[in-house]
Amino acid sequence: MEQIIKDFKSYLEEMRMYHQAMAVMSFDANTVAPKAGVAARAKRNGFFTQKVFKMSVSDEMKGFLEALEPVADTLDPTTKAMYRKSKKTYDNNTKIPSEMVKDFAALTNKANVAWEEARKNNDYAHFAPYLEEIVKKRKEMLAYRTAPGQHPYNVLLDDYEEGMTMKIYDGFFSKLRETIVPLVKAIAGSSKKSDLSFAHQPVELRKQKALSTFIADKIGYDTSRGYITESTHPFCSGSHKTDIRITTRYDENDFLSSFYSVLHECGHAIYEQSTADEIAETFLSRGTSTGIHESQSRFYENAIGRSLAFWEYAAEPIKAYLPEGFKDVTPQQFYEAVNQAAPSLIRVEADELTYSLHVMIRYEIECMLFKDEITVADLPAVWNKKYEEYMGITPPSDTLGVLQDIHWSWGYFGYFPTYSLGSAYACQFEAYIKKEMDFEGLVRKGDFAPITAWLTDKIHRHGSIYTPKELMEQISGEQLNATYYTDYLKKKFEAIYEI
Amino acid sequence: MEQIIKDFKSYLEEMRMYHQAMAVMSFDANTVAPKAGVAARAKRNGFFTQKVFKMSVSDEMKGFLEALEPVADTLDPTTKAMYRKSKKTYDNNTKIPSEMVKDFAALTNKANVAWEEARKNNDYAHFAPYLEEIVKKRKEMLAYRTAPGQHPYNVLLDDYEEGMTMKIYDGFFSKLRETIVPLVKAIAGSSKKSDLSFAHQPVELRKQKALSTFIADKIGYDTSRGYITESTHPFCSGSHKTDIRITTRYDENDFLSSFYSVLHECGHAIYEQSTADEIAETFLSRGTSTGIHESQSRFYENAIGRSLAFWEYAAEPIKAYLPEGFKDVTPQQFYEAVNQAAPSLIRVEADELTYSLHVMIRYEIECMLFKDEITVADLPAVWNKKYEEYMGITPPSDTLGVLQDIHWSWGYFGYFPTYSLGSAYACQFEAYIKKEMDFEGLVRKGDFAPITAWLTDKIHRHGSIYTPKELMEQISGEQLNATYYTDYLKKKFEAIYEI
Repeated sequence: MEQIIKDFKSYLEEMRMYHQAMAVMSFDANTVAPKAGVAARAKRNGFFTQKVFKMSVSDEMKGFLEALEPVADTLDPTTKAMYRKSKKTYDNNTKIPSEMVKDFAALTNKANVAWEEARKNNDYAHFAPYLEEIVKKRKEMLAYRTAPGQHPYNVLLDDYEEGMTMKIYDGFFSKLRETIVPLVKAIAGSSKKSDLSFAHQPVELRKQKALSTFIADKIGYDTSRGYITESTHPFCSGSHKTDIRITTRYDENDFLSSFYSVLHECGHAIYEQSTADEIAETFLSRGTSTGIHESQSRFYENAIGRSLAFWEYAAEPIKAYLPEGFKDVTPQQFYEAVNQAAPSLIRVEADELTYSLHVMIRYEIECMLFKDEITVADLPAVWNKKYEEYMGITPPSDTLGVLQDIHWSWGYFGYFPTYSLGSAYACQFEAYIKKEMDFEGLVRKGDFAPITAWLTDKIHRHGSIYTPKELMEQISGEQLNATYYTDYLKKKFEAIYEI
Repeated sequence: MEQIIKDFKSYLEEMRMYHQAMAVMSFDANTVAPKAGVAARAKRNGFFTQKVFKMSVSDEMKGFLEALEPVADTLDPTTKAMYRKSKKTYDNNTKIPSEMVKDFAALTNKANVAWEEARKNNDYAHFAPYLEEIVKKRKEMLAYRTAPGQHPYNVLLDDYEEGMTMKIYDGFFSKLRETIVPLVKAIAGSSKKSDLSFAHQPVELRKQKALSTFIADKIGYDTSRGYITESTHPFCSGSHKTDIRITTRYDENDFLSSFYSVLHECGHAIYEQSTADEIAETFLSRGTSTGIHESQSRFYENAIGRSLAFWEYAAEPIKAYLPEGFKDVTPQQFYEAVNQAAPSLIRVEADELTYSLHVMIRYEIECMLFKDEITVADLPAVWNKKYEEYMGITPPSDTLGVLQDIHWSWGYFGYFPTYSLGSAYACQFEAYIKKEMDFEGLVRKGDFAPITAWLTDKIHRHGSIYTPKELMEQISGEQLNATYYTDYLKKKFEAIYEI
């Protein structure tokens, strides 16, 4: 058995090497690689993707899994997690006929191009046939993986966040709906008006870059084990805990945009930089799930970065990077500027308060689609109706509505709700931390280390040894609880908007 | 047979994917990757190196080669080249016991560290035991590959430049010695003195970067299929003809340093960007040899870039990137500034005239070592004596002498002479081009396209389908001929120094 485990781990190690190579190449592709090389990169990416896919479903893998199954419960947590994750991937990847998987990949590639065109030309009809086919095929593929009595959409939800179901999400989002929708309406009616135009004074890019390094370093991102650069969309990319990079994008007239991107990506990066050395050389040295990963980015971005205490600390040091016109801005003014809340059309540009409404709308629509209550043809109308209902605004075009996100063109259903999990978990963690230390006092001093130490102890160091559910159980005995999130939003935005 | 060839090619394709990944990762490592990630990168690099090594000597590869051998002569040139190169690699890699290869890799890793320390501390004695062991092991390994009657050092020379032997190099270098040594001495006695201090006026890095892009673009490097950035040592790195990058390093007080690095790397890059589309998806889409590759970089750097005609064209457009202090500099002054020649200690900083003397010294020493005429202990004394003899100067320390180059610490013997091949071939090509077109007239107009078209037609497009010997045969029927190089140097430097 010892030899089998050794061979199993060295087999996984080979897969990890390919994953690392893919991470470096993807970072390169998204930062400096010339556009002209796109076809060669696609080919290479296809090769490596297929390589790891084949290894995940090979006879060799099957042999390992069968040999380990009888002893799975007796394995140490690390080896057990390796077995569990490999088994899940094996099962998922082998249940569906490979021809079907291949066809689906070809379909989504074409659909992605059609989506881009449709979005550009505000032409939903051009994308609809592809989306229809995607939904149809996705359902067919799900049939192979759905257990008796299980709803197919739950299979997808579990794919992106282990343990999640419609039952959990329905309860979660209905709690959000109850709190956020009236709050947004109240804010729209609030008479509170502040002049926050100062935030849009131009800040030289060179200064903004220096500010990125300053704040990243200050917040706890180890720049000596990373690199900060620019890309079209900000992201965090890691190949090993000694090499975790982040990107941002700069807007001369909106330094706060990049500033919060940096804080957000630092959250992801700190997570991966802080996994335990014991698992550094395994594929478990990554975050455990999309939702937990997003909780760390949202924690540094919002729980810390969008708090009044943070600006009480940060206003002065940050002004060193800003032009004269900022010199009289108070912490309170910064705080209000970074917490403006209003109904909006575009998810990725939404503020902290309304963000989850955007997510909820997509979740509700996906539920209806997978319950066959609506068809692809109904999407634009359903979409617009929900924006009216929850936000009080109607998208003037499908480009600013149903066509805005890329996800469906890749066949990603069940992914969106994890975005809101991140915000909700972040609020839970903040609440737990507050029980153990003077969170606001520490933030007000710019002393973030004890906070990161808590997160590292409870979350980061474990990488993906534990499922999100197991992790939450260990931290507090409590699972996802929307109340922390809604209480946080209510308290914060009622105060800011004096309602 | 058709199926075998197809399988053979798809096997090579897999190896090419790993090579591409390694190229991207190596570029990343040498430009932006954090130092802290060095161990993880070394591990990954080791994995991929071993992966392609194993594939190059596998039973599968053996099967392909055995099946193709009887029909090798009937294959099309591309397939034949694939067979020939794979066979050579297979033979080289299988003749030596793998344990020996592994031990040698471990030894050179340690030797490299020792070399760095020795160089830093001017302590040859610290490095000597490692080097002794390297030479000993290298000789042992060579014994497995040396044919009866063949000299072992010829095996190494052939490794780095197919077809090269001591007989050829001895003749080549003795011709260089006869011309260059007296020329260097004559220059030292020349009364010609020009004030060339203008070249060291500071030039803002931002301007130098813009100049890099301008000249790279102008000389024929397709920046849309590449990327120019910075690194400690300039290099060219390509994964595919649509993605060939170059790096340089900037010195505020010596803009010409980076300028010529860019021209040099552009030569390498244009070669790889110009291989035929028909071989773009094969490993033949690289330069055919170190010597021919270096001929292209030297061609753009020297034959074009260090000519008077070039500065007659370039002085004005380049001044647009330089400060006011350059405004009265004439083409002749630029020309003299970039062609200063004098004995020097460090190869990588040498001028065009003395460069090959540095190379020759290393070649002569390696010959003596592999003929057992000297031992590792003798190296510093032999080194210094040769610098006295050929350059008229004595290294004041081993750091500035025998310890300056990294190559021997990696066990690279037989590599150095290819550096001089590059300069010599470049002069041959220039002479051939002059027979067919008004080379100087074109350069004087900044019209480099017809020149590149000639090089592409004769050299670039073929990638590594042909050996250097075959290529030279096709171009002119003539092999390496030092006379072009020595005539070029004599004519050029006698005129500049009025001797």
